[in-house]
Amino acid sequence: MSQFLDREFMLKNDKGRELYHKYAENLPIIDYHCHIDPKEIFEDKPYENITEMWLKADHYKWRLMREAGVPEEYITGSMTDHDKFVAFSYALKSAIGNPLHHWSHMELKKYFGITAHLTNESAENIWFLTETYLRDSALSPRKIIEMSNVEVVCTTDDPIDSLIWHEKIKEDTTFRVKVLPAFRPDRAVAIEKDDFSEYVKKLSLVSEVDISDFKSLKEALRNRMEYFDCHGCRVSDHGLQYIPYMEADESEIDAILMRKLEGNTLTDTECEKYRTAVLLFLSGEYYERDWVMQLHFGVERNINSRMYKALSADSGFDVISADTKAGNLSKFLDRVNEKGMPKTVVYSLNPNDNALIDTVINSFQGELRGKMQHGAAWWFNDSKEGILSQLKSFSSLGNLGTFIGMLTDSRSFTSYVRHDYFRRILCSYIGGLVEDGEYPDDSECLKEIIEGISYYNAKEYFGF
Amino acid sequence: MSQFLDREFMLKNDKGRELYHKYAENLPIIDYHCHIDPKEIFEDKPYENITEMWLKADHYKWRLMREAGVPEEYITGSMTDHDKFVAFSYALKSAIGNPLHHWSHMELKKYFGITAHLTNESAENIWFLTETYLRDSALSPRKIIEMSNVEVVCTTDDPIDSLIWHEKIKEDTTFRVKVLPAFRPDRAVAIEKDDFSEYVKKLSLVSEVDISDFKSLKEALRNRMEYFDCHGCRVSDHGLQYIPYMEADESEIDAILMRKLEGNTLTDTECEKYRTAVLLFLSGEYYERDWVMQLHFGVERNINSRMYKALSADSGFDVISADTKAGNLSKFLDRVNEKGMPKTVVYSLNPNDNALIDTVINSFQGELRGKMQHGAAWWFNDSKEGILSQLKSFSSLGNLGTFIGMLTDSRSFTSYVRHDYFRRILCSYIGGLVEDGEYPDDSECLKEIIEGISYYNAKEYFGF
Amino acid sequence: MSQFLDREFMLKNDKGRELYHKYAENLPIIDYHCHIDPKEIFEDKPYENITEMWLKADHYKWRLMREAGVPEEYITGSMTDHDKFVAFSYALKSAIGNPLHHWSHMELKKYFGITAHLTNESAENIWFLTETYLRDSALSPRKIIEMSNVEVVCTTDDPIDSLIWHEKIKEDTTFRVKVLPAFRPDRAVAIEKDDFSEYVKKLSLVSEVDISDFKSLKEALRNRMEYFDCHGCRVSDHGLQYIPYMEADESEIDAILMRKLEGNTLTDTECEKYRTAVLLFLSGEYYERDWVMQLHFGVERNINSRMYKALSADSGFDVISADTKAGNLSKFLDRVNEKGMPKTVVYSLNPNDNALIDTVINSFQGELRGKMQHGAAWWFNDSKEGILSQLKSFSSLGNLGTFIGMLTDSRSFTSYVRHDYFRRILCSYIGGLVEDGEYPDDSECLKEIIEGISYYNAKEYFGF
Repeated sequence: MSQFLDREFMLKNDKGRELYHKYAENLPIIDYHCHIDPKEIFEDKPYENITEMWLKADHYKWRLMREAGVPEEYITGSMTDHDKFVAFSYALKSAIGNPLHHWSHMELKKYFGITAHLTNESAENIWFLTETYLRDSALSPRKIIEMSNVEVVCTTDDPIDSLIWHEKIKEDTTFRVKVLPAFRPDRAVAIEKDDFSEYVKKLSLVSEVDISDFKSLKEALRNRMEYFDCHGCRVSDHGLQYIPYMEADESEIDAILMRKLEGNTLTDTECEKYRTAVLLFLSGEYYERDWVMQLHFGVERNINSRMYKALSADSGFDVISADTKAGNLSKFLDRVNEKGMPKTVVYSLNPNDNALIDTVINSFQGELRGKMQHGAAWWFNDSKEGILSQLKSFSSLGNLGTFIGMLTDSRSFTSYVRHDYFRRILCSYIGGLVEDGEYPDDSECLKEIIEGISYYNAKEYFGF
Repeated sequence: MSQFLDREFMLKNDKGRELYHKYAENLPIIDYHCHIDPKEIFEDKPYENITEMWLKADHYKWRLMREAGVPEEYITGSMTDHDKFVAFSYALKSAIGNPLHHWSHMELKKYFGITAHLTNESAENIWFLTETYLRDSALSPRKIIEMSNVEVVCTTDDPIDSLIWHEKIKEDTTFRVKVLPAFRPDRAVAIEKDDFSEYVKKLSLVSEVDISDFKSLKEALRNRMEYFDCHGCRVSDHGLQYIPYMEADESEIDAILMRKLEGNTLTDTECEKYRTAVLLFLSGEYYERDWVMQLHFGVERNINSRMYKALSADSGFDVISADTKAGNLSKFLDRVNEKGMPKTVVYSLNPNDNALIDTVINSFQGELRGKMQHGAAWWFNDSKEGILSQLKSFSSLGNLGTFIGMLTDSRSFTSYVRHDYFRRILCSYIGGLVEDGEYPDDSECLKEIIEGISYYNAKEYFGF
Repeated sequence: MSQFLDREFMLKNDKGRELYHKYAENLPIIDYHCHIDPKEIFEDKPYENITEMWLKADHYKWRLMREAGVPEEYITGSMTDHDKFVAFSYALKSAIGNPLHHWSHMELKKYFGITAHLTNESAENIWFLTETYLRDSALSPRKIIEMSNVEVVCTTDDPIDSLIWHEKIKEDTTFRVKVLPAFRPDRAVAIEKDDFSEYVKKLSLVSEVDISDFKSLKEALRNRMEYFDCHGCRVSDHGLQYIPYMEADESEIDAILMRKLEGNTLTDTECEKYRTAVLLFLSGEYYERDWVMQLHFGVERNINSRMYKALSADSGFDVISADTKAGNLSKFLDRVNEKGMPKTVVYSLNPNDNALIDTVINSFQGELRGKMQHGAAWWFNDSKEGILSQLKSFSSLGNLGTFIGMLTDSRSFTSYVRHDYFRRILCSYIGGLVEDGEYPDDSECLKEIIEGISYYNAKEYFGF
């Protein structure tokens, strides 16, 4: 029987253990997609206690607590940090098989040296130990990043962002980790939203382009891309309910945009046409700049209106979308391909799309090794089962050795253990194939595959 | 090599065996959802032979026989009970990996002490043994229920049912198992059906409410809920092709209802609006009464018209629905949540909905431990593979320790072995996680999780 | 640790090994569905080199190369056969877990006796060895078929095909393998295509029926079926994006057909009605002739317009369809069933349809053992994971012992190893069930199941 959280955690076979320790364990992390705040990196404030570190902003943990029946005041409400931590401990202990149970214990071990099982009974003691440790060590965002062997961090930034924190971090020579912006123009795409016109005004100001039609909007976005590029940006990111696809000519898009900016409500068809047009424009720009395009889709947001009113977005009420319109993906990419296909990473939150994504993206490969990528298991799929499903789909339908591997996708600095979690599952999967005689015990090839997926493929792909 | 059907059946690891025998094996059964007939419980007639027990009404078995090419006269036709049993044995032997093969042998072992492999060759001998045993032991519904350690049985009952058999069972003090009704108002929801108006008349009579509009229909249903509540009902149940969702105001629903009662054919939109309205009304009532709402969806019924004409419903011609409109689930629950969310168990027959269901229901958690439940693998999914898929989805996306566990969903009394089947698969799954070091060998937590899912969570949840 | 590609390749347990070597390994192959060219069989030209054998027409391999970033000139372009082979070797080595990696090595072992790992480093040596071997042995299509122990080959043929190569092969008494045509009237179904009218003209000519309405079109198809039947055809095949279903009466179909033949563009609805009608007609004919109907659906073709222009169809740009309209399957089969259900094999390229297919087809079983079949994992699903998913779905929801087993579905003669691959995975799956005590170690039943799925079920089903 394996010991929980020991040196061989998640490694189910000898070959997997060997591969992990020899090739994967000590490689740096390329964190090409996360949601951490560059301001927090710059300010680098030490944490007061583990609740501040863990429970302030992590809606994954909030969901688990609600499911265990913990009252909201212990989750997002007014209870003390101590009591919130105890409540979380109570929720966590019964979450057998949930990645939060794994991550939390990996984080306690890595950043605090604690290996006890966190339950409401052990909570008091662990609260005391972590509080003491935090006080003594002054653990802070940068320390965590450095302890985690991170080489590059890409944050997620709106086109109108000044990137001032990125500049400040760059100026500070005491911190050697690259912190780069990623271009996420979701608000420039979401024409259906109420605040779109407001947003366009801001974009106009920041870009110093008077936006009066689609052409000038594109000009403004192009300006911002230039600005981001100068700040080291190499990657864009889109968060979408689904991939839109409805063609229209430029004059129609102009009319739609004008109608919106004049305060009218658009039809679904109009919105869809605009979204398609702006995404096609952007993908062309990414191609020109050799930026990577990330497409995250399959998310339905804020489904609980009551809680949305109380807590607003990103509070744990987003779900897997039932209708991801995955059929649009091939049509959209085919149009992108007319002008030139940028390096593209496709992620769907709905695991039913896995096989389809693998077949579609591999119909647009060419020129570069692994140019089109099926993105790593993400958000709700970032579990042992989800990671294995993505790996099995990728390897059965594609060329696994070209995979750029894991993203963090987190708002929390301690989430870097997710890379370790992924590497362990990867090595266990590949080790299992070798032990089962499904791939030769060819150490040169295996080294290349494991090191590639853990680090080198992403490094080369993004060109940081 | 493990022995078929031995003491450790379906238990693949030592920890799983330990957990099963220590915590799960001997707990009583809370049978909160089944289709057995309370009249049969009351009358308690001993079985004449195993065909009467097994093959009279079990469309699962009929399907397996048809697939093996057994002529219909040996299935639902005029052949003798003996010959039907032999034909079933022939069909069963090649059904490797099918849960019917497991259940049948578990039932032979548990209720008859027979451990031979049932094939057309052993059939004669097993026919003889079971016939003798049945004659000698006078095995009957109540005996089976008692042998199965059942604490509560919830039948499935139409609102217009008099519940007379429930009353009679309750009066009979020799039988100590609680037999409670469950409220299944499918016919009051299915306005698209031809017999809806006929049904409304009956509901009018039974409830003593003159139904002339939506308000009075609701009054009638409320009356029946009151009646069911007085008979110990704590749970409702809905069988749906999909979750409807289309809003309309009360006056529109009135008009739709009137049109139907006057003999008109409704449009799909009208039907959808009515179904949405009546389900929203009912869920509000369940909330008021603290009843559990069960939503079973994803079923397409009677797809083989020829056989439907010959044998009518529930004869083995229902299937997984391709279009479960799972996207409606979040919208529907959001509306329910406005007035108050009852404890809710969501089941889809389409296994592709598993991950989505887990994310949606967990966006409406709160107040109670495991208030929103992803229901156990059901009907076509009630197999080792289906049970494991549901457990993996539940645990990866939720808090498995809060799960209320297995339902029987059967028309046959011997089906109680399905609970044992489920508990074995559960313990094997959890034991595997512990042996693989994915959860600590923390016996207190494990005891709580296993006992909870096997028995205590359901007991507390339904409040019987 | 198992050795790659040894005698027990893909066999994970002792019982599986025993079952494979005892029952499966040496049975002949019934190749009831493939895309090999009867002309090539007749001409029987020896291969010049391994690139000619492997890379001339295999778009599976092309995709893998593109994914590895190999330039198109090394794939479908002008580079030498030698350089193309080296480029493929480079792409292959990182494709851990991909069936191409397995098949390629199985083929090297079976047909050339080579067991080295094929990488860009070993490529030179393997090129030399295979070239020498091909020269010395004059390996040719017929030799490969004979080495593969194939009993029957069904090619895939258009109704207007003269079947001349089939006739020539039949006349040649030196070749004892049955090579039969299969009837694939895709072009007579695809009324939406530009070349439909052109095709109808050809059909008119070949059938000697003047096609002026739906009745005469049916007559022409009937003539061709007669012709195919005389040439030993026992099976039809349809390749569809989805199963169409929209009813119309004969006069409407006449009008639609006329409009098309007169050069008009049809609406989607008109196309759908025609396709439904012609498929219903054909299925009735198959029933009359006791032919097997194969329905392959869930494919979206030629999604990359740029590459389609450059390379035309079947070049590696087809994908899993997102919208397989699987809900039509039950409606379509129900209508077929009115007149009489032919033996039917249903395959979807979208693995999400697996469970649904199993429940739908098993609602139309009867008369014959395994009359309705869930077809083997096919094309993109023909991988270890895909095969296991299909087997688990089939066995959990149906009667696995009735399964007709593997199809080749290949354009390459060396692809016969896929049958061996399938049998190994099958035996390992079944052996695992037995070792885990999920099925008794009943050698008579196991022999029947394994031999049936490997060979006898197909032999009986197709009646060759």
